[in-house]
This record gives sequence, C-alpha cells and structure tokens, in this order.
Amino acid sequence: MRQRQDFSRFINPRAVAVVGASSDPSRIGGQPLKLLIEFGYQGKVYPVNPKYTEIKDLPCYPDLAAVPQPCDVALVALSAPHVPGVIEQCGKAGIPFALVLSAGFSEVGEQGKSLQSQLVDAARKAGVRVVGPNCLGILNLKDNARIGFGGTLQLKTLKPGPLAMVTQSGGFGFGVVAIACYYGLGFNYAISTGNEADLTMLDWIADLVERPEVEIVVAFMEGITDGRRMIDIGERALELGKPILVWKVGNTDVGSRAATSHTARMTAGYELFRAAFRHGGFIEIRDVDDLIDISKVLLGRKLPAGNRIAVLTLSGGAGVLLADRCIEHGLALPKLTAATVSRLREIMVSFASADNPIDATAHGYNDNFASYGKAIREVLADPNIDQVVARVPRGTAARPWAEGLLEVLRATDKPLVVNWPTAPDDNGDVMHYLEQNNVPCILAPGRAVRAMAAVTGFAQKRRSFVQRGTYIFKRVTERRNLDLAGAEGTLGEHRSKSLLKAYGVPVTNETLLSAKDIAALEHCPLPFPVAVKIESPDIPHKTEAGVVRLNVRDLAELKRAARDIAAAAARHKADARIDGILVQEMAEGLEVIVGAVNDPFFGPTVAFGLGGILTELMKDVTHRFAPFDEDAAREMIAEIKGAPLLTGYRGRPVLDVAALAQTLARVSQLIADHADRIAEIDINPLFVRPEGQGVVAADALIVLKN
Amino acid sequence: MRQRQDFSRFINPRAVAVVGASSDPSRIGGQPLKLLIEFGYQGKVYPVNPKYTEIKDLPCYPDLAAVPQPCDVALVALSAPHVPGVIEQCGKAGIPFALVLSAGFSEVGEQGKSLQSQLVDAARKAGVRVVGPNCLGILNLKDNARIGFGGTLQLKTLKPGPLAMVTQSGGFGFGVVAIACYYGLGFNYAISTGNEADLTMLDWIADLVERPEVEIVVAFMEGITDGRRMIDIGERALELGKPILVWKVGNTDVGSRAATSHTARMTAGYELFRAAFRHGGFIEIRDVDDLIDISKVLLGRKLPAGNRIAVLTLSGGAGVLLADRCIEHGLALPKLTAATVSRLREIMVSFASADNPIDATAHGYNDNFASYGKAIREVLADPNIDQVVARVPRGTAARPWAEGLLEVLRATDKPLVVNWPTAPDDNGDVMHYLEQNNVPCILAPGRAVRAMAAVTGFAQKRRSFVQRGTYIFKRVTERRNLDLAGAEGTLGEHRSKSLLKAYGVPVTNETLLSAKDIAALEHCPLPFPVAVKIESPDIPHKTEAGVVRLNVRDLAELKRAARDIAAAAARHKADARIDGILVQEMAEGLEVIVGAVNDPFFGPTVAFGLGGILTELMKDVTHRFAPFDEDAAREMIAEIKGAPLLTGYRGRPVLDVAALAQTLARVSQLIADHADRIAEIDINPLFVRPEGQGVVAADALIVLKN
Repeated sequence: MRQRQDFSRFINPRAVAVVGASSDPSRIGGQPLKLLIEFGYQGKVYPVNPKYTEIKDLPCYPDLAAVPQPCDVALVALSAPHVPGVIEQCGKAGIPFALVLSAGFSEVGEQGKSLQSQLVDAARKAGVRVVGPNCLGILNLKDNARIGFGGTLQLKTLKPGPLAMVTQSGGFGFGVVAIACYYGLGFNYAISTGNEADLTMLDWIADLVERPEVEIVVAFMEGITDGRRMIDIGERALELGKPILVWKVGNTDVGSRAATSHTARMTAGYELFRAAFRHGGFIEIRDVDDLIDISKVLLGRKLPAGNRIAVLTLSGGAGVLLADRCIEHGLALPKLTAATVSRLREIMVSFASADNPIDATAHGYNDNFASYGKAIREVLADPNIDQVVARVPRGTAARPWAEGLLEVLRATDKPLVVNWPTAPDDNGDVMHYLEQNNVPCILAPGRAVRAMAAVTGFAQKRRSFVQRGTYIFKRVTERRNLDLAGAEGTLGEHRSKSLLKAYGVPVTNETLLSAKDIAALEHCPLPFPVAVKIESPDIPHKTEAGVVRLNVRDLAELKRAARDIAAAAARHKADARIDGILVQEMAEGLEVIVGAVNDPFFGPTVAFGLGGILTELMKDVTHRFAPFDEDAAREMIAEIKGAPLLTGYRGRPVLDVAALAQTLARVSQLIADHADRIAEIDINPLFVRPEGQGVVAADALIVLKN
Repeated sequence: MRQRQDFSRFINPRAVAVVGASSDPSRIGGQPLKLLIEFGYQGKVYPVNPKYTEIKDLPCYPDLAAVPQPCDVALVALSAPHVPGVIEQCGKAGIPFALVLSAGFSEVGEQGKSLQSQLVDAARKAGVRVVGPNCLGILNLKDNARIGFGGTLQLKTLKPGPLAMVTQSGGFGFGVVAIACYYGLGFNYAISTGNEADLTMLDWIADLVERPEVEIVVAFMEGITDGRRMIDIGERALELGKPILVWKVGNTDVGSRAATSHTARMTAGYELFRAAFRHGGFIEIRDVDDLIDISKVLLGRKLPAGNRIAVLTLSGGAGVLLADRCIEHGLALPKLTAATVSRLREIMVSFASADNPIDATAHGYNDNFASYGKAIREVLADPNIDQVVARVPRGTAARPWAEGLLEVLRATDKPLVVNWPTAPDDNGDVMHYLEQNNVPCILAPGRAVRAMAAVTGFAQKRRSFVQRGTYIFKRVTERRNLDLAGAEGTLGEHRSKSLLKAYGVPVTNETLLSAKDIAALEHCPLPFPVAVKIESPDIPHKTEAGVVRLNVRDLAELKRAARDIAAAAARHKADARIDGILVQEMAEGLEVIVGAVNDPFFGPTVAFGLGGILTELMKDVTHRFAPFDEDAAREMIAEIKGAPLLTGYRGRPVLDVAALAQTLARVSQLIADHADRIAEIDINPLFVRPEGQGVVAADALIVLKN
C-alpha cells in the first residue's frame, strides 16, 4: 500500500480562500461564500478579489499572497485561463490544496486540454494538490463545510452520517446524495472530482475508507486509469471491513462511447471492472435504490455469517415471493432443525407452515402477534440460519411487538431485515422506531432480498479475507527468459507454443518442416492421424484462410495437404512470410479457451471460457488479474456457467481440472513476467482431457507489443 | 371469448348483508360494518345476526330470508361450518353474490377441504357466485364500498383511480395497494380472491379489463389452473390496449413448494407462464417498484411507436448511465438526423454533446434552461426518435421551464419520462406539477428506463395485434389418425418416429430387424456407416443403458453390435420388452431439441432449444402453446440465445430454418390433435442441415397418457 497523503485539511480546512469571490450569489464565485457562511462553517473564509475590499462583511483580499495564514484550501472560481496562475500563487502562499470549480479545461477541446496541462504543471511545481477542475466541490456535512457550488449544496435537508460519496459526475452524484438523505441516510463527505487533473477518485476512496467517521464509501465511477490501485484499495476495504459501493457506468458500447466523449476518460472493458469488484471489498450497485437499501442493511451493523436465510411472514403470498427472490439471489433457504420445527409447531396454529419459508398465517394476528414474535426468536436461534427477513405486524399491537423484537435482536448477532408490509405512513411510527434502532425496514420485498444478498456477498469476502489474510501469490513456475530474438507483432503458432512451453504449458507434439522436407518424407515424424497447418506470422486466422487440414491419415494425404496448404496461403496473402509447415498430433478433449491481454488500465489479465460458441455466443467467460496461483485459477474455473462440464456432468468423464488450473496460473505468470513484451496470448482451443491425463494447447497465438 | 357474467353488482352492490355482523369492530364480523358505514358507502347495509335486533343504529336481521330486497351481496363472516348453509340461504333469498371472509377451508387440511366442497356444491345449487373463502374482500374505492376486513381496508390514505388489483394473497396484495397509493397511484377496485372455491383470479381479470374505469389491471398470482383462458384474456387485453401487470410468484422450486403448501394450488412451470406473458397483453412485474413506475409511465397515456429512445441530460454522468440502462433493456439509442444535430449545435454550447445521449452540460443552466428546453423539442420532433427520457433542471427557473415543457409535450404524441435528478422535496412543487399533467417523474434512473422498456414491449405487442388482428392459426398439415393399437406408456424409438412421420416430421432412414434377422444378414439394408440401437419401450434412456452403437462401418461390426446390444439390454433390464434391433442411417447437422408436453394447466406446449449442454446447462430453451403455425415457429426459433448458430454464425453454413420451423409447427399439431392420447414428445436430437437440406429426427420418444 503506497504512502497516503493526509487530506484532512482539504476536507476540513482551517480556512478557505475563495478566489474570484463575488457578492452575487447567482455567480459561481458568489455561491461558495454564501454556502460557507450560511451553513455555519467554523473555519475562516477569505474572499479574494482585487475589485473589492469587502464582501458580505468579510475583508476581501487582492490576491492569495495577502491572505492570512494558515489557509488550507484555495477555492478557485475564476475563468479557466487564470487558473494555472492561481495554483502557482497557492504554492507561494503555502496553501497546500486547491479546489478548482472552473470549467473550460479538457472537457471543451484542444485549447482546454492545453490549459489543463498548464494547470497540472503548475500544481506539480508548486506542490499543490488539486481537486477538479470542472467539479462541484467538496461537501463536508460533518463540519458544515460546503466548499463548492450547485443546487445540491444549497439544500437544507442534507444530513451528516457514516457514508461518504466520491463522484466523477458532480451533478449526478450530488443529486444522489440528496436523494439518499431524503430516504434517511447521512453523508459526512461528498467529493466531486471533476476532470481529475491531479487528485483522482481513487485517491479519495483510499483516503475516505481509512477514516473512522466513514463506514461506507460510495463511488459513482465513469472510468479509472489505474486498475491495479483500485484492486489494492478493494483489498484494503476488506481488511478494514468497510464496503465500497461502486456504481460503474459507461458499461455498454453506447454508454462507454458517451463517457469517453464527455470526460475524455478512457475506460477498460466492463468485464475487468466486474472482475475487480468481485474480489475486493466492493459491492456493485446499479441504481439509487441499491445504494439506499444496501446502506440500510449495512448500517444494521451485523454481517451475516453465511447465506442461509429464513423467511417469516403472516401471509403465505409474501413468503412465496420472498423465497423466490432469495433463491434467485443465491441465498439458501435451509430446513430448520427438528428442534426448532417442533417448537414452532407448539407456538403456531396447526396449519401454519413451520417449513422455511415460515408462514404464521393471518392467525398470527389473534394473539397480538405474541406467537409470531416467539417464532422469530426461535428461528434466529436456529443453528441452520444465518439471517432472517421478516414481514411485520400492522395495527395498534405493532409497537409493543416491535419493542419485543428489539429485545430479541439485542441477544443475537444475526441480522434481521424487515420487509415492511404496507405504506410507509401506515404505522409509520413503528417503522421509524425500528429504523432508529438499526433494524432496516424495506418496502419492496425484492429490494429487501437483493440488499441482503449483496451484504451477504460482502460478508463472505470479508470472512475469506480474515481467514486467509492479504492475498499472497505463490508462483507455480520460475520466471524464465524468453527467446524473442527477432520477434515482433503476431508470432506464428509454433513459435507461440515454444514460449508457452517455456512456462510449462503443455502443447501438442509437432514438427515444423519445410515444404521441400515434406515432399521428400519417407515416414511421417508423428503417428497418424495428424493435423497440417501453415506456420506464418502473417496468417493468424488459419481456418478462415484455408491453411489447416485435420485428421490427415497417411503419408500421401500429408504430402497432398502440405501442397494444398502452401497454395492456399499464397492465394490468401501473396506476401505472407511462411516459416514452414507444421505437422501436429491430433488432440482431443473438452475445448476451452485461455486468453491473456495486457490491458492498458488493469495490466495483464487472463480470460477463461469454454470453447467455441459457449464463449462467443453465451459470453460464458471469466477474467482474472495476472499473475495468480492455482487456487485462484480453480476459483476462476468455478465461476463459469459451463463449469459442471469439467466435473462429470451427466455421466461425462471427470476432467483434469488440476492441470487446467496449473495452465491458467502458468499463462498468468508468462504474461505478467513479460508484460513489457507480450500484448496478447490466445490459446484456442486448449483441450482438457480426463482426470490425470492433463491438458494440451492445440492452437496458440502470441502478439508482442509494438 | 366465453360469455361473461356481469359482476357490476358484486363490486358495487345496491345493498350488502353482513352475515355474522358484530358491534365489536375488532371482530371479523364487526369490521365490515364499520368500514361500510364510516367510508360513506351509498348502498344499504343489513346486519344479519339472530342475537341482535340492532347494531350501530342499523336494524339487525335474524337471517338472510328476512333481509329487504334487493340485496346484491352477502358478506359472510361466520365460522366455516356455518358457511355452506348461508350460501344456500343466499339462493333462497335471491342474493346473487357471496363474499366469504371466513377461514378454515381448504387451507387448513382435510376437514377444511371437505367444507369447501360443501360450499362449492351449495353455491352451484343455489346459483350463487362466491368470492373466497379465506379472503380479505372487495375494495371499491370509486364508490366507497370497502366490503371486507383487515388493516389495509381501514386506511384513509387509499385513493380511487384507474388501476384495479386482483390478488390471490389478500394480505400481501392489499398491502401493495396501500404502498402504490402512497406513491400517488389510485385503485378503483381491489379484489382478494382467497381460496377461489368458485370465482378465480382469471374471472376477475376478465371482468375488470372490460371496465372503462379500469385502465390497468394488476394481478398478484400464485397459480392458475386454466392457462388457456389466461392466454385468451391476454389477447383480449391487447385488443383493448389495456395492460395486465402480472406479478407471478412461486417460480423457484422453493417458492413453488411453498405456494403449493399454503394454498393447495398446483402450478405449472414458470417457463410456461412466461411464454404466456410474453405474447399477450401482459407486463410481468417483479416488485412494488415495477408496479409504481410502469403504471406512472402508462398513465402518461402515450404509447411509444417503437424502441428508439433519446436521452437528454444536463450532466454527462447521468447520460452515460441512462444510455447503459437503455441498451441493457433492449432500447435503441439511434443517431439523430443530420438536421436535428445541426439545430442542436446552434442551440447548445459548442462542447455539448449533440450525439445521443445528448448532454447539454451544466452550461444548460446559463440561460435558465431555455436552450435545454429547445433541445428537447428538437429531439422529440426527430423522426428517428420514438420516446425521450430527460433529466430536468433544478432551482427557481425550473417551474417556468416545466410549463414550457408541457407545451412542447402537448404538441407531440411521443412519450417523455422525466428522470428526477434530486430529492423529491427539492423543487417538489415542480415534480407535482409535472405529474399532475401526466408527465411521469421517476427518481432512480435505472427504474425510469426499466419502466419505459416494459411499456415499449407492451406497445410493440399492441401494435402487432392491431396490424395482425386476433391470431388465426393456419395448419401446416392435415389432422391424421394415428395407429396407436395396443400402445401404452412410453413408446420405443421406431414406433415414436412412425407417429412423427405421419405428421410429416422427417426421421432417419431405418429398419427394425430381429436379432435373428441380423445374424442372418448378407447385406446391410442401409449404406454404412449406420447406428444400431435396441428398440424397447422399457429402455427409454438408451445411451445410459449401453444399447446404442454409432458409426458401425461394416457387416461384421453390425452383427457384433447387435449381439452386444442385446446382451447389454438383458443386463440393464432383464424383463424389458424387446421389439427388435434398429438399424439406422447416421445423420448429422446442428443438434437441436424439440420437446412437447401436455401440461395439465396450459395444455399442449412445445419446447425448443439447441441440443446438448446448451439446453441443459444454459437453459437456452423457449416454449410455445400448441398448435401453432410456421410464422409462430420462426418467432420461437428467434427467441433462443443460440439462434445465430442457425443463420450462418461466424462463417458457419446457413441452416434450414424453414424446415425447422415446419417441423416445430408439425410437432405442435401432432400433440394438439392428439392431446387426449399423447402426454409427451421428445425429439433429441433433431439435426438441422444446411439450407435446402432439411432436418431429420435422429432419436425420438413419445409417451402416451395413462
């Protein structure tokens, strides 16, 4: 983990200089002043504007040099061309942080890009850290420091609390903060990172996740450039047990094109983000509701010990629905122990369902819900159950019942989420009472379950982390030097395989011969049948070019095949470099694909999927960051939908998963060790044979970096 | 469409007799009286209870015979054993409808089931139609008739409006009504159908969808028994242009087990429900939010003419997000016409994005959103665009801006949905103003898009219906009599194929021979290679039993194969009936599976999927109700994810989709024509050959009904 700079004085400055301050609150330079004063910020505010001597009863300074010390933040609201100069002044005045609201930088074309470079240069030289430009600012609700501008900052309804938001889209992300506050959440901080000329979203997430007053970090993310750092931060979040709710957009082609056009942020493929989110302390969210629901469940402050859930209702229909949703979201509805079932049968009416989902039926109303309360207590105590979702009573008996529920919950570390059965204003005081006491109440049953499933996933990752500690990668093979003499661009199959072989990846037996050699052959160097292929760095797609013959059965056929292939190659690409003709054993097994790319943002990554149409058409592929070991490779294998085909699906043989995991790990080490040279590796197909018989790469292609 | 009984006097009776009336509002017999009186029901209320002469200032009658005429509904709140007698009395008293709140019927075991039979018998004899038992009643908010009991009925916050709810779970469904009313929707009717001893959910949907005061029917459905009627109702809904929002639960194994246990309702597989929902005027919903959002969009009362959407925002991040969600939900973001783009470039600042998604950027704020309003107008006028989702301005300029927007919207029949950018209480008056004027405002961007996509799907189905009219099925083959002499249970492969052949389904060339015949053969009756299989109705899973040999290449191998197979069959099942040994041409092509089952609830249905693991592991299967024609079969083929494999995927040959569609239609007609005898048809595999070369059933199995 790299050395972090302390941003405490950025988010809670002793004084803020407002450069370009104005007395007109409708102006970008007028709003911040008004916001700082009116919301009770306790630090000093220094308006800076040579045109005035006083603004809003505050002395106004001609420039930053004149501002009293200490001053931690310069808020800059001047037009873009003036900004680099102000940053320079910050350095001279000893102001460590600048918040640049001004637009007109990289988001507006070439001239703006050049201004942004000047800004960055000035910041580097001056040793000033910058948020923005083109951002809405920093919102510190804990200390009433609203350092920025825009509609959300003016809302009196915003509330401090254990969440923190970092957003690459200020307008959108701050709007989300407003919505979440309306639904009862609180944010100590919200930071709009704008163009990220200097400080990025990742810098802020890394800072916020460490703060004791932040329990949940929310990130509205369009793109990042340092994928590996994001992965590290995710790992740290797991260590701290603090989730990062990440809302990634720009995931479809259209969305990502739009993201690129409006921020000039290049983004890696969504599948790599998802791979990163899957493993670190991230919870991916996709809408405002997810943010609200998942935060509510997290703020119950009990992580479930597993995915085994019990559903309790007073109405069968709700139980059926909740059960459906639990199963769909990967939660298990186990049977209760016999002891619990027998106690439930004593407590509830005879025709109630003591099976999970547990339905007390409307008869639960008959004793003012006393038996329903007891049933919840019994179910929470059941060792087969990790967490509970329950509908709650309505009417006048609901409040005393809720008090009893809280008592039960105080005695357990298992989480319970309430699926509220009616309108929020029907027994609203009871809902309020439960929520004040950290019992999350969610109206929509599907949302309740989705949030619980999301928190269960985080809890599972956190548990694994605690058991295993920080991931320590164990090499499966030594680093090898590769013979890359004279190699460039796309390598031929045989040469590609020689590199794989150096890393212990099994490849087909094969010999590279010249056309002349083959014409003169008296015996085939390999047992028939064989495959015959052109070896050429210029013909990467051999099947399409017609330069492959499979199942060649005798010497005459081999010679004919070699002649045909050479002719086809010449037809396909007259100037193709031909390194020879490859004679290769025919291999078989289950076809899988192993790919590796050196992503500009995430570095070397490995993709794995089942061969042919399953990967292409069904998108049944998984990704992992290289290098990784066999354990990680086994997890990867288990992630694809087609995984059962490897483990004896419907009477098929059990395949050599161990050898496959070895190979994935070796490929990951090959691309990671030689990330400076290798751009791509493509093994297609790799055949996986029955257990004990290994795997073999039947075709492969390596592309070097330019 | 069958003759419908008019339920108008059931939901809006001239008088209600409350049988088992009580003055104690905490009792099931006390609540209805109180509800009818307090909420201003304009009909007469007749308490019936021999114990009293007066309840709540109303004269109380000793029995139904004494109640004044006319009386349309008897509300029954007596204990279960008394109910059948009361139904009988209804008949005598000329009361056509009974609403039975009482529990203690089929939901509580054998004794209850028997009581329910008595109730049904009494109703049939008396000519009385019954809702319930074990229900919460009928809620008519339009006419202030709250005929029932329970927490929801007591809420003053319920509102009448163009929705109607039918729910098989009273507690849950009525709770949903309360929630939806809280979020601004209104329900003229809500009906809890309880055990459905007589009137079912489908009876009610069929009634409500015809009512002019109902624009949207919502159904909370655990199960139905008459799938074909549901399909008819769905077709009728399309004809009327009124969507049925159907919330089906009990879809997973666990959920469906729970549904069965608590209502004794058997349900067909979820996939058949989904097939029915896909084609009729249904919109499937999965949570309260869907109900709220989709209803809001529908109540904008403009159906989009297509799926081409434009996204307009004042913040790039929101545009990226909305674009992602549109693509994910199957909406298209087309380019705008060059004319629109050039007008947008004139209207907006130079660095705004005139591409779709259209981002006016925060500069939209600079002119009080005048240019943003113009941009929306231009985009709505673009012929490439069918509908618009737009973020709206905040602040003091928002109200006049919204007025301008309404003017623009009045001049177009394209729908626009607002994705509200902030908390509902930030500029809440503007949101209210827009919603009052039928402009739906939805906070969560993903929810806004999901609702628009759902309505787009409905609009598409409605358009197809209008173009095509009621589906008229065109036979592809004559009805044939089948030779089923002596047949029962599972038929052998050869016999199964002979039935398929009678319906024109191409099957492999094959001959059924005895073991003796084969031993004596001098020439194979078919060209080699051949497949050799046992023909036995007792060995349906031939591969697992080891009674199949493929690619047999000569006569000696054939004779050996026949001997081996006979021995394997004897080992597998000593008493299996052996009808001979099947010698069959080897066929090839793309493997697909065609299945047909005679579902107890939906009748004959056909399933289609790609062969092998794609169907089994990836669940890439689609279903359709038999019989159907080739056009329908083509739609079915296009529904599977693997469909591109049939149409020349990545250089593969284009396959004979026409022959495949023919075969699907023929199978559908075979099972539909002989639904009285055929329980199941399984063709696995059917090989699909290149275009013009047809299809061939390589293995098949038909199961007859017992």
